[in-house]
Amino acid sequence: MDTGSAKRVVVDAMSMLPGASRMVGGHPLAGSEHSGPAFADRALFHGRTFFLCATPESTAEARERADGLVRGLGAQPLWVEAADHDRMLAATSHLPQIVASLLAASVESPGPYAGPAFRDMTRLAGSDPSIWRDILLANAHDVVRAGRSYGQALSSLLDAIEAEDVASIEGAILSGQRARELLEAAT
Amino acid sequence: MDTGSAKRVVVDAMSMLPGASRMVGGHPLAGSEHSGPAFADRALFHGRTFFLCATPESTAEARERADGLVRGLGAQPLWVEAADHDRMLAATSHLPQIVASLLAASVESPGPYAGPAFRDMTRLAGSDPSIWRDILLANAHDVVRAGRSYGQALSSLLDAIEAEDVASIEGAILSGQRARELLEAAT
Repeated sequence: MDTGSAKRVVVDAMSMLPGASRMVGGHPLAGSEHSGPAFADRALFHGRTFFLCATPESTAEARERADGLVRGLGAQPLWVEAADHDRMLAATSHLPQIVASLLAASVESPGPYAGPAFRDMTRLAGSDPSIWRDILLANAHDVVRAGRSYGQALSSLLDAIEAEDVASIEGAILSGQRARELLEAAT
Repeated sequence: MDTGSAKRVVVDAMSMLPGASRMVGGHPLAGSEHSGPAFADRALFHGRTFFLCATPESTAEARERADGLVRGLGAQPLWVEAADHDRMLAATSHLPQIVASLLAASVESPGPYAGPAFRDMTRLAGSDPSIWRDILLANAHDVVRAGRSYGQALSSLLDAIEAEDVASIEGAILSGQRARELLEAAT
């Protein structure tokens, strides 16, 4: 079992390896912008979703062992298709990561202008660049698709602000608010 | 004194009002995505930066009274030009607000795929839409400029991911990481 954030390339590669029957892909939805043993945390996986992706070759025994290992960590195993996982994670994790990096880099010297909102929105930018380079490359297709769609939404909203199109501006913010309320209600 | 997040239009308007000599613009860098008396917090301003913008008409007495009021709240007064304030806040507050709304609205049903990163990056989307509609309109020029520049950086990074241009991808993430490190060092 691996624990990377992009699953399709890994599961595809596993399928072609000798011993594929004993392998499954894994991805815990846990962690922070920190990495390395100094940030070890024994409760890291407690109550977290841990995605598991079987290969076409994985035996029932391999799946059960992975399931048991994940439960043993205190996490919640969730079996999904690698393609679904990668499409969703592009939007909920990989794109937000890019956004945080670009926002952080967009202001040369924020100084006293960096309030709590800017700090929250750039926290992820502290993550390890080599890890994220690899994730973005491994899930390039889905990340680019999610990013282009988000870029178009941004461009439309900026057009609306430039045109003082009050209804469109308010509509965009309301859509975000409704989505955020659904997210909080689901917690 | 007002407390809005865009200062140029307010200070310009103040300058033309009767009694302009007694007015200054104000903006506390404090608050959250919540609004209303239910979220009153007596420590809200403690240690926070509170921007103050004199009008060309503000008397020394008016400035001293505003300064004293802000210190009385436990906040740190910082006198700035309204134009500088708005240009910087467009990048550190108004654009991040838009980004959070668009990210939240970009995923229909995140379900188990919404991890801590997605929650952090969409928290601001819960803010009051009518307040933010007004801020975006009041600072339209600077918000659009910051947003277009950020949109171009996003587009370039997506191009690099599509082209598997490893050096450019890593460069973009590294720039964000360095900026974030400077931000943390300044705290």
